Formats: sequence, C-alpha cells, structure tokens
Amino acid sequence: MSFSPLIRQLIDALRILPGVGQKTAQRMALQLLERDRSGGLRLAQALTRAMEGVGYCRQCRTLSEDELCLQCSDPRRDDSLLCVVEGPLDVFAIEQTGYRGRYFVLKGHLSPLDGLGPEAIGIPELEARIGQGRFSEVILATNPTVEGEATAHYIAQLLAPRGLRLSRIAHGVPLGGELELVDGGTLAHAMAGRRQFEL
Amino acid sequence: MSFSPLIRQLIDALRILPGVGQKTAQRMALQLLERDRSGGLRLAQALTRAMEGVGYCRQCRTLSEDELCLQCSDPRRDDSLLCVVEGPLDVFAIEQTGYRGRYFVLKGHLSPLDGLGPEAIGIPELEARIGQGRFSEVILATNPTVEGEATAHYIAQLLAPRGLRLSRIAHGVPLGGELELVDGGTLAHAMAGRRQFEL
Ligand SMILES: [Zn+2]
Ligand SMILES: [Zn+2]
Repeated sequence: MSFSPLIRQLIDALRILPGVGQKTAQRMALQLLERDRSGGLRLAQALTRAMEGVGYCRQCRTLSEDELCLQCSDPRRDDSLLCVVEGPLDVFAIEQTGYRGRYFVLKGHLSPLDGLGPEAIGIPELEARIGQGRFSEVILATNPTVEGEATAHYIAQLLAPRGLRLSRIAHGVPLGGELELVDGGTLAHAMAGRRQFEL
Repeated sequence: MSFSPLIRQLIDALRILPGVGQKTAQRMALQLLERDRSGGLRLAQALTRAMEGVGYCRQCRTLSEDELCLQCSDPRRDDSLLCVVEGPLDVFAIEQTGYRGRYFVLKGHLSPLDGLGPEAIGIPELEARIGQGRFSEVILATNPTVEGEATAHYIAQLLAPRGLRLSRIAHGVPLGGELELVDGGTLAHAMAGRRQFEL
C-alpha cells in the first residue's frame, strides 16, 4: 500500500457509504485532501452532529432531532389523512407530490424470513397513532414490491374493523416512460385500474 | 423541505464529495442514520484526523502525515530511478505495476490558460529534488492527455542539459484518459515499454 495510515483510514471509512467502492473512496479522500479540507472538516462536523443528535419523531417515527418532526409540528396540515410509508426517504418523496396530511413511518416492511414481524417494523406504534388521531383515511404507501404489498395487506386487514377509509397508491405506467419498456405486471395493473377518460 | 435541520446539513455536506448529487447524498445520510451511526462517527473522526494531520512529503511532495512518505523513507528502493506524476493517486497506480524507484509528485499539469505555470505545479521543487539525488533516469508519467504531454515535454526540455536518461511511459495507455483510471495490466505494459524522451 502506498497511502499513509491516516489516508488509508479515511479511504476505509468512506467505504461505509452506500455505493462507494475502493476506487471511489480513494478519489474522494484525495480530492478532499488536495482541494477542500475545510469542506472535509465541515462534513466531519455535520456527521458527528447528525449521528449524535438525530432521533425519531415521537409521533410519526421519522428521523428528527426534535421531539416532533416538521410534518407533525405543522398546524396547517390535514389531520384527517394519514400516509403510511416504509422509511424517511419516502416521506420526502411523498412530500414532492403535494400531499399535506400526516405520516407514519414504518421501519421497513414485514419480512418473516428475516424475523421481521409486526412489532419489529412498528405496527403497534402505528395502531397507537391511529388511536390518538381523528383520521378519516389511511393511505398505504408502502413500496410496490412483493414485501410492500404484503405489508400493506397486513395493515389493511388489521385496520379494517375501525371503519376508516383505507387506500393504496395506484399502480400504473410511470409518467414519461415508454409503454414497450414497462413490465407486464405493471401494465396489467394499469389496464385493470383504467379510468374514465376526462375530457 | 421535509428533513430536519441536522439531516439537511448532513446532506448538504455530503455533496462536496466528488460524484455525489442530491439524491445520492440523501440516501447516504439516511442510510448512516438508520443503519450505521457508529460507522458515521468513525468516518467523522477519520475525516477530521486526515484533514488536520495530512501534509506533504518534503521530498516527493505526495500527501503524507509524516515528513517523509512511505516511498521516500523505504531504504530498499532504487535510488537511480525517479518517476514524475501529476498527483498522489498516480503514485498508487504506478505502485501497482511493480515499480520500486522514487517519485516526484507535481501539483497537476501545466495549464497556462488557468495561470498554472511551472512554479504553480512544483517544477522548481522537482529540479531541486533531482539536484539532490543521484538519478540515472527520470520517467515522465504525467497523464496521457494534451496537458500531460505538454507538461512532460516542458520538463524534458528543462532537464535535457543534465545528461539524464529521460523516458515517457509508453502509449499503451489510452490517449485522453486519466492515469488513475487505467487498469494495472495496461499500466504495467506502459511502464515496461517506456522509451527515451524525444525532444
Ligand atoms: Zn413526525
Ligand atoms: Zn515522499
């Protein structure tokens, strides 16, 4: 090896980042050292503060350093809508759609083979949250994967007795895509879910 | 925005890394927060130590926290060979070929349009280094780009009166590429096929 110990340790540490292999980590380390040391120190400080300071919102369970996150503490949101997602990045994605109701963030999806049952992903907390609220509709926005569908199904059955409106985000062809590139399953869903054309 | 301030600051700070855009930075931040906080703290510490502790080898000018780098302080290396490269990553690349002479690391290449002349890239220090040594051959291993070729040419003309053997890594390396991205085998051929520098 031809890097000095501190550089080698930095390269190793950078490899914990998702998608960063040995070559990328080398480039990152040397670029910071050669061109942006103050940026590197700012990154170190931001990492320390976030790793030590960020916890979970006590209401929706998304990542937040405050007891209530931005979405939960905003008084202008629609308290009759609850959107259930698999993780904090999904909150960000749903926000981009213009949705302005409330959220509940699971810890991923049910995965019995990995020993991840309802307790592990926060379903009891979801029930408690619904019990405290006055929601008229719960939108199940888990991922459109086999596991996400199964998780949505499980939650829907669990909540059915409460007389809430339960909805699932629609499946269909993605905007801007070409039909011939869409997989058969998705296209079948898009056909089955077709709606009256609005003129 | 739907991320809390500490998360937002972490995402912003991650974007200083080369090749990391907004979406990648979001994924990195949330993955560290959700799955590897101790890894995140180790990265913070490695960054701080490297940014504050790493300087430049006084002899070859590569990045090193010691006054003399690993290559310069190794007594078993061939003191008759000097390999001149554009940056510290190139030392790493050349090491992979089995080369075991000495190095001199420029600060990039000559770039008159950016105001980067011989002084800016460390040519006076290269001359001083050669003056102190007892080299029989100087291998010009700047990048096989237009700027790298021009820099090699400049150095060759400058050193010509010293009666050293001047060589250039062979064009087994693809033109227009960057040395640090070339695979080890190609680079080994290029080293083995180096030729007398033609003025
Ligand atoms: Zn919240
Ligand atoms: Zn050195």
